[in-house]
Amino acid sequence: MRFFSDNAAAAHPAVLSALSAANTLDTAYDGDVLSRRLGGAFSDLFGTQVRALWISTGTAANCLALASLCPPFGGVICHSEAHINVDECGAPEFFTLGAKLLLADGPGAKLTPAAVEQVAAGIRNDVHQVQPRVLSITNATEYGLVYTPDEVAALGDVAKRRGLGFHMDGARFANAVAHLGCAPAELTWRAGLDALSFGFVKNGGLSAEALIFFRPELAEETFYRRKRAGHLFSKGRYLAAQLLAMLEGDLWLDNARAANHGAALLAKAAGDRLVYPVQANEVFLRVTAEEAARLRALGFDFYDWGPGEARLVVSWDQDEAAIRPLADAIAAL
Amino acid sequence: MRFFSDNAAAAHPAVLSALSAANTLDTAYDGDVLSRRLGGAFSDLFGTQVRALWISTGTAANCLALASLCPPFGGVICHSEAHINVDECGAPEFFTLGAKLLLADGPGAKLTPAAVEQVAAGIRNDVHQVQPRVLSITNATEYGLVYTPDEVAALGDVAKRRGLGFHMDGARFANAVAHLGCAPAELTWRAGLDALSFGFVKNGGLSAEALIFFRPELAEETFYRRKRAGHLFSKGRYLAAQLLAMLEGDLWLDNARAANHGAALLAKAAGDRLVYPVQANEVFLRVTAEEAARLRALGFDFYDWGPGEARLVVSWDQDEAAIRPLADAIAAL
Amino acid sequence: MRFFSDNAAAAHPAVLSALSAANTLDTAYDGDVLSRRLGGAFSDLFGTQVRALWISTGTAANCLALASLCPPFGGVICHSEAHINVDECGAPEFFTLGAKLLLADGPGAKLTPAAVEQVAAGIRNDVHQVQPRVLSITNATEYGLVYTPDEVAALGDVAKRRGLGFHMDGARFANAVAHLGCAPAELTWRAGLDALSFGFVKNGGLSAEALIFFRPELAEETFYRRKRAGHLFSKGRYLAAQLLAMLEGDLWLDNARAANHGAALLAKAAGDRLVYPVQANEVFLRVTAEEAARLRALGFDFYDWGPGEARLVVSWDQDEAAIRPLADAIAAL
Amino acid sequence: MRFFSDNAAAAHPAVLSALSAANTLDTAYDGDVLSRRLGGAFSDLFGTQVRALWISTGTAANCLALASLCPPFGGVICHSEAHINVDECGAPEFFTLGAKLLLADGPGAKLTPAAVEQVAAGIRNDVHQVQPRVLSITNATEYGLVYTPDEVAALGDVAKRRGLGFHMDGARFANAVAHLGCAPAELTWRAGLDALSFGFVKNGGLSAEALIFFRPELAEETFYRRKRAGHLFSKGRYLAAQLLAMLEGDLWLDNARAANHGAALLAKAAGDRLVYPVQANEVFLRVTAEEAARLRALGFDFYDWGPGEARLVVSWDQDEAAIRPLADAIAAL
Repeated sequence: MRFFSDNAAAAHPAVLSALSAANTLDTAYDGDVLSRRLGGAFSDLFGTQVRALWISTGTAANCLALASLCPPFGGVICHSEAHINVDECGAPEFFTLGAKLLLADGPGAKLTPAAVEQVAAGIRNDVHQVQPRVLSITNATEYGLVYTPDEVAALGDVAKRRGLGFHMDGARFANAVAHLGCAPAELTWRAGLDALSFGFVKNGGLSAEALIFFRPELAEETFYRRKRAGHLFSKGRYLAAQLLAMLEGDLWLDNARAANHGAALLAKAAGDRLVYPVQANEVFLRVTAEEAARLRALGFDFYDWGPGEARLVVSWDQDEAAIRPLADAIAAL
Repeated sequence: MRFFSDNAAAAHPAVLSALSAANTLDTAYDGDVLSRRLGGAFSDLFGTQVRALWISTGTAANCLALASLCPPFGGVICHSEAHINVDECGAPEFFTLGAKLLLADGPGAKLTPAAVEQVAAGIRNDVHQVQPRVLSITNATEYGLVYTPDEVAALGDVAKRRGLGFHMDGARFANAVAHLGCAPAELTWRAGLDALSFGFVKNGGLSAEALIFFRPELAEETFYRRKRAGHLFSKGRYLAAQLLAMLEGDLWLDNARAANHGAALLAKAAGDRLVYPVQANEVFLRVTAEEAARLRALGFDFYDWGPGEARLVVSWDQDEAAIRPLADAIAAL
Repeated sequence: MRFFSDNAAAAHPAVLSALSAANTLDTAYDGDVLSRRLGGAFSDLFGTQVRALWISTGTAANCLALASLCPPFGGVICHSEAHINVDECGAPEFFTLGAKLLLADGPGAKLTPAAVEQVAAGIRNDVHQVQPRVLSITNATEYGLVYTPDEVAALGDVAKRRGLGFHMDGARFANAVAHLGCAPAELTWRAGLDALSFGFVKNGGLSAEALIFFRPELAEETFYRRKRAGHLFSKGRYLAAQLLAMLEGDLWLDNARAANHGAALLAKAAGDRLVYPVQANEVFLRVTAEEAARLRALGFDFYDWGPGEARLVVSWDQDEAAIRPLADAIAAL
Repeated sequence: MRFFSDNAAAAHPAVLSALSAANTLDTAYDGDVLSRRLGGAFSDLFGTQVRALWISTGTAANCLALASLCPPFGGVICHSEAHINVDECGAPEFFTLGAKLLLADGPGAKLTPAAVEQVAAGIRNDVHQVQPRVLSITNATEYGLVYTPDEVAALGDVAKRRGLGFHMDGARFANAVAHLGCAPAELTWRAGLDALSFGFVKNGGLSAEALIFFRPELAEETFYRRKRAGHLFSKGRYLAAQLLAMLEGDLWLDNARAANHGAALLAKAAGDRLVYPVQANEVFLRVTAEEAARLRALGFDFYDWGPGEARLVVSWDQDEAAIRPLADAIAAL
């Protein structure tokens, strides 16, 4: 049974159906009716005028966002354990053409205004040092912690005061919203966000993420950057179709709720073994090597997260019946 | 009726079926069984050991190939009308991080050894000028002309003699092979080719092209470049599935033959109006503005290619019945 | 006797004296009194408020200017024979991080509004093509032709109308001004120029060029780019000293006049052999290989400029006595 | 009295004399007799065949070396307080076109094999993480500590075992050699070094550093990179002249000994106030804000290095008479 990554989950049937439905003649690239519908659909969702681009991977969405906010000679303040720092093989440096990640720390890969200020304050305001230009956070974080609207807004204030662009890696944005039960607007533009990588692939999608610009003018040059990075699909309508299918009837939210719910079940079973509170669909567990082996022997697959820790990720398609055996096994350790 | 681009055609049903079939649990990224099957499948097709990577767009496939062959301070000899020069928004410069396209000329966007030599000979061998490092050709060319194996081999000889890597943009490689009736090996590695962007999207695919390395060691660093460019899909198995479906039973060749056949019908109807001989699935036609308008009034959609010329592209899914009305309309002009 | 390049000439004694005079304690980088004096000195010269940075090479000055005006995904319209295209080993692509040179043509490496418009008009306004963002000209051109203030202004109008930044490679700007007898302002900002690479090294300098921004805000990020490119000298005061020495008593203009005068003497001797009218310090001569050999046998050194042409460059330190023997030898051919 | 930076010191008279001596006709760029003499001169000094390029700044020398050793998708292991990380405004990222600095720690900005191994071991060997390709150290370090030949060799072993290129930022290499009294070979190629940025500017030079390649083949593409970065001077002979003047009669070593000697005098006066042992020409002192103010009131100029610390740097031209007043003032605090 698979708990090693939500990337390994299947696509939701509605997404596949949408591909079939899109399989009719249309204009190439993003001139089709589906692609052109995205701006409106996401503007409705966020309650403000946004620009929405389909992007095929989260890495590309993150890094196109960063490139739109950060010049090659600038810096991006982010957590040292942020996906953009440790799991994208230098994609931010590639897309921005040489910007520098300026690393902050804090438990659970979560940033605070104080942590951001500390990094910024440590940089001399002269030409010998890379000056910060962007603040990037991940919500939910790489450890499944969720920033509340107030926490995002507090960081947005820092960004504004320091003249930084503000980006959110929302690979699990849906899980954060599902956890909080808030309006997407509260967690984004109302909190000062400029750009959001809105993830769908981990949440039942197939090959389409959305890059949302709350400052629409940022989209203009991103269209060129997207093409230039080989991310403008000639049959882009199939990407748009996926996103529209996920928005339809709030499928994205349903999927995230299901995954969060499974993780909550595991959390309950885990009790004191939890490394972090479980707020999204990831569970970090303290286990000995022997215990980990025991779980694996029972057929559970997961990621060893450093010595003595295991990462379990619940996907949209794992219902209680799928979760129960692992929950029981954890409780029985 | 659509003749403006093969990008606008639908995906073949077998491709969509393959997506559904792939929609089961598997490893993330390219560790899945389908992705791992690609090397073998393409090695069989080419009759030699190759490395095959799925890439989601032709632009990315082309430019990852160029980046593997050309250092940032090098140059790529290509035709001035090559797709990489005029239709990829500087993607080659982005992926190679600043290499320079060194432009050669020739009718129908087709290069000859003499044209390549002329460019190379015009470059002083000193540090003030960008030195050529790669030769890149498109087969079939942007005007639908096909290089024969002998023609490719002659260019391969130039490349070898001058120490240049040799790349083929094969967005319509299938159409070239279908036209020639030769083995894929003849047109590629036996003719000295190092890397091929093997296009499927224009030929009934959805979102997967293959990047084929005939010098397998070139693939090693390309895996990093692919990730870094945001082109490593977390659900890469769906891309692999598409390619395998296209190879299955030579679907790629059937589709290309169908498109070429349709173009041949149009060519016959066009007679003296042809700007170039029709060898693949593109037809360039001499028409007055008035004639073009007349065709459009009849419901035919196509691309104006400079003053007095129209480009008609036939897709894999257009059978004789779909072609006949346009052929008749052209004959009746 | 040396006529192959003004780069090979000695530095003017005043420049060396200035180095010695600067050889006293001062602040590092560009915080010294000499560096801080540059803005005022050049503002006086141009009759408007400018920002002036010392830069050690013309290539760096040109390319920092281009980088300040052109995003990585943009294009620079320039002549196909411009120094930035053929003699800087891709430095524009490196400094701009991948911008594309969009090449125009015209005799003597001189651009006209029509030539610029032709390039611009040939670019589709869509994301598939690199959009022009900058116009760059060389004055005097690589063939020693001089743009008049009116000619520059006409190009400035095109730039303005099309929203392009406007840069002048002034490696031989001094020779152009000396030829025209105009105010530097007429040839630059009054004609719409945004940035000028003002060359001194070919004109009796040693290792300092000036990068002049007529839109001072462009200088701000260039300070970072300069540092990042390794062009911020820790002992920058020695570069500032050179520039101030060249401005002192209009030494730059005297030197350029001397070189132009020598070239005029050669031109007179050359008569019908001239390929271009001689307006600056370069003389392009029609000579057979045998004639070239004869001149060399007499001890004259120069550059073969393609078959049947020789390039003779006069330097600031060659007076009539130094020129006369070559003039006589040419006349006697 | 100036103790804030050795960058602020004057150039040695022999360097200025060399400029005057070089001020005669010669070939442009690096084709002159002086530039061509560098390889031999440095090969003699290092007792092995090296390639030596003049480079005008330490930042450029460092970053050209890194670019020759590290692909754009690779990583450079260095100390978190290394000059390349904190004081070059992202120049490594610019020259390498996006490589990532992988930061290790240790007191006094000095790396140990264990610290390097820890960084390397923390990187998963997969495409999601930037793989280390280079190890870069600074000798003497940014805090004036000196690696011995054995220490360098131990790091060289790590580099070799892990397949890393090995670079030394030798902005104060002369001070390290002067301190150790060893042969330059011991501290470099015999210890496994591939490339050395050999600093002269802080040591009585004016505008020339040497980039030394112990693997000569690395120089080949660096010639292109140097030109492309605008660092090929048209009058390069003046840079070569500076380096040759510094090598002549071991002037570089005399200058470094003088500076080290002055620092030793200050160290003796400082006693327990020393933050680090003084091995080169830098002295880090514990002082209260009030004490620092008192020293400044006496006319001593220096750098505040974080709270409670002052950095004093002695230059080649400060003899005992110049040092004594500060030594006395420190002793009297």
